[in-house]
Amino acid sequence: MVTLAAHHDGSEVHVPGGTPALGDVVPVRVRVPRVPGGADAQVRAVWLRTVRDGEPRRAEARRARQDEHESWYVADVLVHNPVTSYRFFLDVPGGYRWLNGRGVFDRDVPDAADFRLTVHPPAPSWMGDGVVYQVFPDRFARSAEADSRPVPDWAQPAGWDDEPLAAGPGVGTQYYGGDLRGIEEHLDHLQALGVGTVYLTPVFPGRSNHRYDASTFDHVDPLLGGDEAYASLSRAVHARGMRLLGDLTTNHTGAGHEWFERAHADEASAERDWFYWTPGEPGYVGWLEHASLPKLNYGSPTLGARMIDGPGSVVGRYLGEPFALDGWRIDVANMTGRYADEDRTLEIARRIRATMAAINPDAVLVSEHFHDASLDLAGDGWHANMNYSAFTRPIWTWLAPHDSTVPFLGLPVTTPRRGGRSMVETMRDFDAVLPWSVTSRQWNMLGSHDTPRLRSIVGSAEMVEVAATLLLTYPGTPVMFAGDEVGLTGTNGEHARVPMPWDRPERWDGDTFEVYRRLVALRRGSRALREGGLRWLVVDDDAVAYLRETLDERVLVVVARDAWDGARLPRHLLTGADAERLYGDLGLRVTPDGLDVAGDGPGVGVWRLA
Amino acid sequence: MVTLAAHHDGSEVHVPGGTPALGDVVPVRVRVPRVPGGADAQVRAVWLRTVRDGEPRRAEARRARQDEHESWYVADVLVHNPVTSYRFFLDVPGGYRWLNGRGVFDRDVPDAADFRLTVHPPAPSWMGDGVVYQVFPDRFARSAEADSRPVPDWAQPAGWDDEPLAAGPGVGTQYYGGDLRGIEEHLDHLQALGVGTVYLTPVFPGRSNHRYDASTFDHVDPLLGGDEAYASLSRAVHARGMRLLGDLTTNHTGAGHEWFERAHADEASAERDWFYWTPGEPGYVGWLEHASLPKLNYGSPTLGARMIDGPGSVVGRYLGEPFALDGWRIDVANMTGRYADEDRTLEIARRIRATMAAINPDAVLVSEHFHDASLDLAGDGWHANMNYSAFTRPIWTWLAPHDSTVPFLGLPVTTPRRGGRSMVETMRDFDAVLPWSVTSRQWNMLGSHDTPRLRSIVGSAEMVEVAATLLLTYPGTPVMFAGDEVGLTGTNGEHARVPMPWDRPERWDGDTFEVYRRLVALRRGSRALREGGLRWLVVDDDAVAYLRETLDERVLVVVARDAWDGARLPRHLLTGADAERLYGDLGLRVTPDGLDVAGDGPGVGVWRLA
Repeated sequence: MVTLAAHHDGSEVHVPGGTPALGDVVPVRVRVPRVPGGADAQVRAVWLRTVRDGEPRRAEARRARQDEHESWYVADVLVHNPVTSYRFFLDVPGGYRWLNGRGVFDRDVPDAADFRLTVHPPAPSWMGDGVVYQVFPDRFARSAEADSRPVPDWAQPAGWDDEPLAAGPGVGTQYYGGDLRGIEEHLDHLQALGVGTVYLTPVFPGRSNHRYDASTFDHVDPLLGGDEAYASLSRAVHARGMRLLGDLTTNHTGAGHEWFERAHADEASAERDWFYWTPGEPGYVGWLEHASLPKLNYGSPTLGARMIDGPGSVVGRYLGEPFALDGWRIDVANMTGRYADEDRTLEIARRIRATMAAINPDAVLVSEHFHDASLDLAGDGWHANMNYSAFTRPIWTWLAPHDSTVPFLGLPVTTPRRGGRSMVETMRDFDAVLPWSVTSRQWNMLGSHDTPRLRSIVGSAEMVEVAATLLLTYPGTPVMFAGDEVGLTGTNGEHARVPMPWDRPERWDGDTFEVYRRLVALRRGSRALREGGLRWLVVDDDAVAYLRETLDERVLVVVARDAWDGARLPRHLLTGADAERLYGDLGLRVTPDGLDVAGDGPGVGVWRLA
Repeated sequence: MVTLAAHHDGSEVHVPGGTPALGDVVPVRVRVPRVPGGADAQVRAVWLRTVRDGEPRRAEARRARQDEHESWYVADVLVHNPVTSYRFFLDVPGGYRWLNGRGVFDRDVPDAADFRLTVHPPAPSWMGDGVVYQVFPDRFARSAEADSRPVPDWAQPAGWDDEPLAAGPGVGTQYYGGDLRGIEEHLDHLQALGVGTVYLTPVFPGRSNHRYDASTFDHVDPLLGGDEAYASLSRAVHARGMRLLGDLTTNHTGAGHEWFERAHADEASAERDWFYWTPGEPGYVGWLEHASLPKLNYGSPTLGARMIDGPGSVVGRYLGEPFALDGWRIDVANMTGRYADEDRTLEIARRIRATMAAINPDAVLVSEHFHDASLDLAGDGWHANMNYSAFTRPIWTWLAPHDSTVPFLGLPVTTPRRGGRSMVETMRDFDAVLPWSVTSRQWNMLGSHDTPRLRSIVGSAEMVEVAATLLLTYPGTPVMFAGDEVGLTGTNGEHARVPMPWDRPERWDGDTFEVYRRLVALRRGSRALREGGLRWLVVDDDAVAYLRETLDERVLVVVARDAWDGARLPRHLLTGADAERLYGDLGLRVTPDGLDVAGDGPGVGVWRLA
């Protein structure tokens, strides 16, 4: 029998909804199982520990209710600081236990994994309600208009069915000519999939297929159809009830950017101090030392007004009509404003959010940060981060085959295969250093334009289904890279930027599309999957199971990469006589003694228990 | 046989001495054991990962040397940011491992436990070279002069041999009348013990025996002998080659403080905005809501000059002649400058350090913070912290008896008994979130004026010796509370403020004094114990062992709280034919197969191996 542990998270089951104000008192609830012989069965008292003005405080929790299975304790958190951290103390015979975001510990632990309440509103819920669909404009679809456009001087044209280059000088200039009208023409596909938000990588002109090297922020690339096509796409997306996000390089411009060209040519130019000038070649600081991508210097007193502050700035302008973006994904957010002894990242994030909030209070701001973003996600800057650390990477390592030949992003090895324990420890480690208001909005991905394709990493459609089930049932915002839903492959970020094979049915995996479509619909149909807490039940090397719970719903998710031992879950988790199967084929048998999850695998199962 | 793990720490064996400047390249070294079948035996390559401007970078390490036992790799860390974090990546078949300050992990881990180089100088080495001896002036010694002083109106006189109150209204006003001349008269005792630094809790006038409720910072309490006695003590301490530290309440004053009285009486007074005024009773913010201790408000534009900035400030003045303090311990440092949405703690720490450095570059600044101070110890503010978290508390839990009745500081339980694994995990968790330059200077204590006495916690002189061996052989600054060395007892902070029983031989544990005296001398005689790295060899529930290593010395420390299984250590750790016993009685047998540590216990052993 699986033994439940004491549990708390930031979801509505444990914390009242809404964003508290400074001075508010928020009653938080913790559940302590009463399993005979269970680790927490002998709890004598529960205390709340908060940190107030840097000092730990404690207050005894009240037992609010109790049944034969569990006790619920309530304690009041005074939101005295903008970010107020807390954890629970369980008084048990012979010692004590701490409960924090990483779990239960029988010894003292540092504060980083404490639970947190913040006075800063989270991202609006719309972001996580549907799936975010990432489109790389050069590779999604090519309208008839594209044929009449001249090929730019930097570009090497490719046929739509050509395999993208994986390495070499041509990776950035191989040009397929996808455009914004092409995207607009395929919105039916997105709606069939259940997409809620369309996220486009950059649309400003540059000298590359990825356009992360903008030559101006003042207009949309004519090669994509220009401002009109962007506005038209925005209207079409919104008309279908979807949202549209942009992608902005706040860290750098292209070396061909009009600002940089003036700054470089003329030391007296107004833009001169918008960049970092250094001795030697190339004479300025570039992103990762690339001369093609000069880094912006926010120490300048004038850059802010042009780039990030106010409705006339780049950040502000595209949120207004006619583009009406619903938010920005910020490229290289982790480095924006950081250089040597300067660190303005948090301040810049705050200023961008303020600009956005003044124009559209419902807009979202998402950062790119590939590793540990915890110190950048205090709550008043980036709403959420691209969650490679707590989601993408650990899932890859769980589902990769033993003999993977796909490079492991950012590391000089192929993707290793690890057990479910390793996966979940990593997920918890990185989740726990953030407030729930961030965790519940993080951009969970199984890949992006910067990574190998999921299908190439895990090797089979069967494992893609396991991964997709995690994606659509885990707390946060599910984000898909266009093409994953039809089984596209690719062994690194560049190679994975495969054009959508609209006219190539043999490259189009309809079964995988159906998997994603059904899982997106599943999520849309379950408030627990969208807004519920996260309680781990089984963490086995070949299978994991967890509950997603709201006040009115409890959903059980089981995913197995292989056959395993199965598990018996406590019967009382099920309200009523039988579990309602929502998705998947794994076996679940309800007996008087418990809920017996079969040890089948690979496979997935999702059931509504209450 | 104990299997060694890959290892790195910030000591001279792995990182060149000195404080790097921005832009410096620092070669760091990591050792990878070559034990057949050992966890790291198959390392194919080692990489360095640094975080630069928020972005992880990697560079392959060079194998600098190799013998049959281990390989040494070297990699260059560019100190591009004031705090530059790094860790090591080990490429092994089937995956990889990360090595950070907490140890070796076969999965991704957050950044908090990364190693760090900082451009901020650490505390001067003198602080950790000898032992710091904490004196609570009211309870240390009473000179003949004290008899002629009037008893203040707030005080309830106690006889020198009376047992201190443990609770109730009298704990703060029970008055023994120790004075500064009394301390000066007993410096022989300190020198016999080997004390390097005398740290006095506050000497400013107040209305309590602890004087943390200052009524002025302008002069020393006449009840202690006044400014002249403080200056005289300083001269005497320095004449013996020792140092003297003060104790300052930067967070608050007493309600009887002259500043507060003026501010309270007159809204137009210059001091009005030095405090926080609130509606209702008492009308201002007090430390932990105590009306007797009004909190200082550093948002005031004028408080700084009076309190912390420049040679005329309180911080500055006592570092100059005739007091010539060698530094400050800052009371409630964790709350200083923090209130609601204000957080000036790091800024205040920096300003205090700047004031001190301008007067005496060799002065030290130590913070009081009872829990996780990692975010306050970035390197340019507090040099070090009172290390309750990574030292005091875990050692208490290891050595407390099963049936302890002594309250566990700050928690509503008696002190629990935990195994050595739990102790070491806690020590590593809290050590690893700090740069080595801080860890190697932390104030390690076995108790203080705020805690029960060690002897009462662990219950026997035998366990005191185990604890004291840890204290004097662990990285950091050993700090003793006066009286621990003669076996004084006390069940909480107030009860533990026992007057030194100078004339009561029956209360004076001469054996324990000898234990401390010998261990202090041991540390003074071993550079490895003072400056060496820390490599854990054995972590058993009843015994732990570690190495302290410099380039020229290797010392093995074994401490056992009970009989255990013993351990065989690799023979190559010993250079030469036999280990030189430096302290203790535990058995160590050198054989061709290894160094066999006997499973005796309780007991301790310290040997020089190289």
